[in-house]
Amino acid sequence: MFNKLGILAGGGPLPARIVETCLASGREVFVIAFENETDPTTCERAPHLWVSLGKVGRTINKLKSEGCRDVVFAGPIRRPSFSKLKPDMRAIKLMGKIRKSASQGDDAILSILIEELESENFRVVGADELLRDVAAPKGNLSQRAPNKTDEKDVELGMQVARALGALDVGQAVVVQHGLVIGVEAIEGTDLLLKRCGELKREERGGVLVKLKKPQQERRADLPTIGADTVRRAAMAGLNGIAVEEGQSLILDRNEVIAEANRLGLFVTGVEI
Amino acid sequence: MFNKLGILAGGGPLPARIVETCLASGREVFVIAFENETDPTTCERAPHLWVSLGKVGRTINKLKSEGCRDVVFAGPIRRPSFSKLKPDMRAIKLMGKIRKSASQGDDAILSILIEELESENFRVVGADELLRDVAAPKGNLSQRAPNKTDEKDVELGMQVARALGALDVGQAVVVQHGLVIGVEAIEGTDLLLKRCGELKREERGGVLVKLKKPQQERRADLPTIGADTVRRAAMAGLNGIAVEEGQSLILDRNEVIAEANRLGLFVTGVEI
Repeated sequence: MFNKLGILAGGGPLPARIVETCLASGREVFVIAFENETDPTTCERAPHLWVSLGKVGRTINKLKSEGCRDVVFAGPIRRPSFSKLKPDMRAIKLMGKIRKSASQGDDAILSILIEELESENFRVVGADELLRDVAAPKGNLSQRAPNKTDEKDVELGMQVARALGALDVGQAVVVQHGLVIGVEAIEGTDLLLKRCGELKREERGGVLVKLKKPQQERRADLPTIGADTVRRAAMAGLNGIAVEEGQSLILDRNEVIAEANRLGLFVTGVEI
Repeated sequence: MFNKLGILAGGGPLPARIVETCLASGREVFVIAFENETDPTTCERAPHLWVSLGKVGRTINKLKSEGCRDVVFAGPIRRPSFSKLKPDMRAIKLMGKIRKSASQGDDAILSILIEELESENFRVVGADELLRDVAAPKGNLSQRAPNKTDEKDVELGMQVARALGALDVGQAVVVQHGLVIGVEAIEGTDLLLKRCGELKREERGGVLVKLKKPQQERRADLPTIGADTVRRAAMAGLNGIAVEEGQSLILDRNEVIAEANRLGLFVTGVEI
């Protein structure tokens, strides 16, 4: 029997998928929804609390009083400005730890948050442990497969993504015909794709590569794509998307495959 | 006595500065201006030929018939689409070489172009050999100096820029409070600054770091900043700009310093 799950809900569709899956299987959940971050539909059918990002103590106390033992980080959170953070005492303590850490990138901060939750005896689980068939499989999912040029572009994109990831910068890269068109930092994959659509050569081609950072804590913020990513990649004129087998999440796999086939893109799981 | 200089003029103000400086010192020049790339004012006072980027044979023949022995690459060139390149025979030959090279980044392509010109007995010179006081000096140029946080941001930016540069991706990075806000690929520094201004924390802070790629051919496309870069960095809310001492170009140093002081930014030359 599964115990009650606390969901720290960032943006995008991932938190809502976890809520649905848990409720369908009869597992209880409690959602911590963050102001200006969480999609409100996430909370529609689940008990929840809206908090601002700086309310770390309040969040921990609420998860405890709700009886959650397992906790999951789901969906991206944008970095708040100091002036809007309004940290409580516990958040101030954490900010001190973060300031002392070598990197202030997302991965560094998420690792510190996970440590903090574990010190309170929560078990932090990965989104991929909760959703069935969400981890990217190896090989081609779509009818279309990468051609020779795409394969080289994927290769280069992986090299760049790994170098960037190792520095805790970002997860995604767009490459066309051997040229790196754009590299993701904090803007997110949607904005990266939009920019690359405007900057790339007019000819159709190019690939989106999205990889876990080499040292990344896999229970937080694994690279994720969904049907919307496929549509945005198509709008940018790309040939396809490569994600890392087993280390990336594909939300709504059937819809992703259907969209990729409709739009003539490849979606492929690569091994590093 | 200096011989006649052929100027392969990309975008931005650098080619015009070289024309002015040469004419002022009595050196003859001939400008190859590229359609949709070169600022037309570059050609106002100098003999010139407008060509499309694919006209490599025509360019070489013209430089020869004009009696140019020295040639300089000045200013950035955007990558054309294949359909607009309209390559001549010589360009097609070069494109074959480029396709075979390990990287298709700017540095790889410029190195191949320099080789090609040298095979025709041109001497390819760097822009920094032609302009006085254009190479960035070491240390602080502005009244404002980097504070402790800025110094750490510069350090991280240098690390990321070097990793990216080694992969022939880009030269510029924006960092704020230990977080990499944006990384330059083909969009150029102006667009990078614009995006980072929108994405960064509202609080003023953050730095632009612009470095030569470690393996970069220094006679082509050295990292360049000018007064306009200072203004754009100020608009993005940054604290300042760090460039590599001796390996970056500062155009119109006096104006850069004046703007930095007026806007309260630092401009500093760092050693790697």
